[in-house]
Amino acid sequence: AKNPKNRYEIAVVQGDGIGPEVCGAGLAVMRAALGGDGILNFSEYRAGANCYRDTGTAFPAATYDACKAADAIFHGAAGIPGVTYPDGTEAGLDFGLQLRFRLDLFANIRPVKLHPGVSSPLSDAARTGIDYVILRENTEGFYAARGGGNLVRDDIASDTGIITRAGTERVVRKAFELSRLRNGALRDGRRRVTVCDKANVLRSLAFFRKVAQEVANDYPDIELDFALVDAMTVHLVRKPDFYDVIVTENMFGDIISDLGAATVGGMGMSPTAEIGDRNGFFQAAHGSAPDIAGQGIANPYGTILSAAMMLDWLGDRHGDARLTEGAERVRAAVAGCLTDGNLPGDLGGNARSDRITEDLCDRLAVMA
Amino acid sequence: AKNPKNRYEIAVVQGDGIGPEVCGAGLAVMRAALGGDGILNFSEYRAGANCYRDTGTAFPAATYDACKAADAIFHGAAGIPGVTYPDGTEAGLDFGLQLRFRLDLFANIRPVKLHPGVSSPLSDAARTGIDYVILRENTEGFYAARGGGNLVRDDIASDTGIITRAGTERVVRKAFELSRLRNGALRDGRRRVTVCDKANVLRSLAFFRKVAQEVANDYPDIELDFALVDAMTVHLVRKPDFYDVIVTENMFGDIISDLGAATVGGMGMSPTAEIGDRNGFFQAAHGSAPDIAGQGIANPYGTILSAAMMLDWLGDRHGDARLTEGAERVRAAVAGCLTDGNLPGDLGGNARSDRITEDLCDRLAVMA
Ligand SMILES: CC(C)[C@H](C(=O)O)[C@@H](O)C(=O)O
Ligand SMILES: CC(C)[C@H](C(=O)O)[C@@H](O)C(=O)O
Repeated sequence: AKNPKNRYEIAVVQGDGIGPEVCGAGLAVMRAALGGDGILNFSEYRAGANCYRDTGTAFPAATYDACKAADAIFHGAAGIPGVTYPDGTEAGLDFGLQLRFRLDLFANIRPVKLHPGVSSPLSDAARTGIDYVILRENTEGFYAARGGGNLVRDDIASDTGIITRAGTERVVRKAFELSRLRNGALRDGRRRVTVCDKANVLRSLAFFRKVAQEVANDYPDIELDFALVDAMTVHLVRKPDFYDVIVTENMFGDIISDLGAATVGGMGMSPTAEIGDRNGFFQAAHGSAPDIAGQGIANPYGTILSAAMMLDWLGDRHGDARLTEGAERVRAAVAGCLTDGNLPGDLGGNARSDRITEDLCDRLAVMA
Repeated sequence: AKNPKNRYEIAVVQGDGIGPEVCGAGLAVMRAALGGDGILNFSEYRAGANCYRDTGTAFPAATYDACKAADAIFHGAAGIPGVTYPDGTEAGLDFGLQLRFRLDLFANIRPVKLHPGVSSPLSDAARTGIDYVILRENTEGFYAARGGGNLVRDDIASDTGIITRAGTERVVRKAFELSRLRNGALRDGRRRVTVCDKANVLRSLAFFRKVAQEVANDYPDIELDFALVDAMTVHLVRKPDFYDVIVTENMFGDIISDLGAATVGGMGMSPTAEIGDRNGFFQAAHGSAPDIAGQGIANPYGTILSAAMMLDWLGDRHGDARLTEGAERVRAAVAGCLTDGNLPGDLGGNARSDRITEDLCDRLAVMA
């Protein structure tokens, strides 16, 4: 598939809460980075809690078909408090969660990077730097049931976590490939894949570790490392600069990627790429923040950094330098903007979302 | 059972690695706090990885019987790298893990407290203080299988997490009782029980939340709060001073209690009490640290603080002020010793274990 297209179709879902605001910021920045609408064609579709409330359907078939057919999918944020599925969980309404399973987006890539100008709650972080990637398996593990667990009378409830060889192999392979792609992320220049599990207590996770070990044989140039999930939380607080790529089970990835985000400015600074063999889905890791929705004060950086990941993924996939270079420019603009102290409320500043977006677009106008 | 005994039987298992060293420190400090061997009678038993290597049995029947019959159980640490059970997990060898299930020690109490003189990796911690308790359900949840999960051919592995109404009720009730016992832990003077789950995705954990909500009705004086486990990791890094008592599922408790420990000096500062209706088991939350075993440099504070929890529990249970006052003295001695900078290597100092233990005993000799 290394043939650049003239134009790429992007399915856009704004979602709920601050979703439309941060999504709009992402689109504006991509347009500025690529000099207009020539290369990407954005089409909007509905899905999520708002859509469910208005139409009775959380994920319309037309939206699914468009997402599946598109070159990439771009999302704002999902969820409205109190709007739940009949089963009582929010899982049925979460557009992103549904998409992972329906489009087999097995690799959930969550970079954890402390950007210049952003302060970390870890006192040593500025000195040591934080720059690693969490690769969360995105289609099985403890999320296999995702709302479909068992409830026996009103007395016993259960959920079964499932690890398959095939599902583990492909995500661990991706981890090693990611480590090869990252240039000099580790201060000591080495490459390292850390497998995070709970092999000492759970058989399914001992199996995850065993399969990971087998895959690792194909990548002798990259160091293989193991961490139990409980100890992993300690390491991410005490020696984050040790890590390069961490690959882990679905729910563990959910947990430790939020922890990682907390150490680099919070959920507002955390982009995500969810990738399958055919499709790619891009959104910030944060929720819909209904408490601040509509006020114009949401942090748009996470979504904008997700846009950069989308440009990178599309560009690599199609061998299209216009896109990878666009991604570079977005990241450079973000770095400049943050360094100059253009910070939203969650990062301790008071810049409004549109001021940040305009600042980024101005920088991009000069670069392009 | 509020009748003080003349003497209490304590079953002691030193365990593996640094186990004997930290266990010895704990016993010495208890003797100093209580003026000798008059009140507690310590009897030693074998269990763990060393015992398995030497005898082929990890948990001899005689040890189990003694633990069951004793007034309390005191443990060093468990595990030797490379010594695993035939099923490939270490779970079969872990004395503490076995004990939880066999003696139904359903409440795993892990205080997270930043002691004076100890520095936190969180830059704001000194200003805000950290002092909360994690109550980990200890007998079900994702630990239900603990090595007994399914492996189908060499292709699919699974583990089933189980939440029961009875198991949830008793541990949530304990959380509210703990909150009542803690005096003024929260800066704002309020009491708060936070239920940590993943109710938005897993049915068993939505059930956990629902049962917790029902139990909460009996405690209208205490605020009820909810956090998804992923968001919980963010909160424990960004606003640890908000928390009072956090109650959670077994594996989530395993994960977030290590995270909590990391914020207050690490595993070496983390005592644990594992409590059932009849039995109580006390050990530090850290492992056996085989890399430093036998060198006399292990941090004994975690085990010593576990000893204080044991004295408190026994004293409360039997209405015996000699023990609760002894616990007070141990904590006062620890605070003094830490404030004076008597820190082991993991806290950035270079005090040897025996110097710390002697210092504590000297302080206790003057207090008693
Ligand atoms: C919203 C929720 C279903 C989702 C998850 O649990 O995976 C979110 O926390 C995430 O990390 O993407
Ligand atoms: C050693 C291990 C089995 C144990 C657990 O996973 O519970 C430990 O991590 C703990 O927290 O007590």
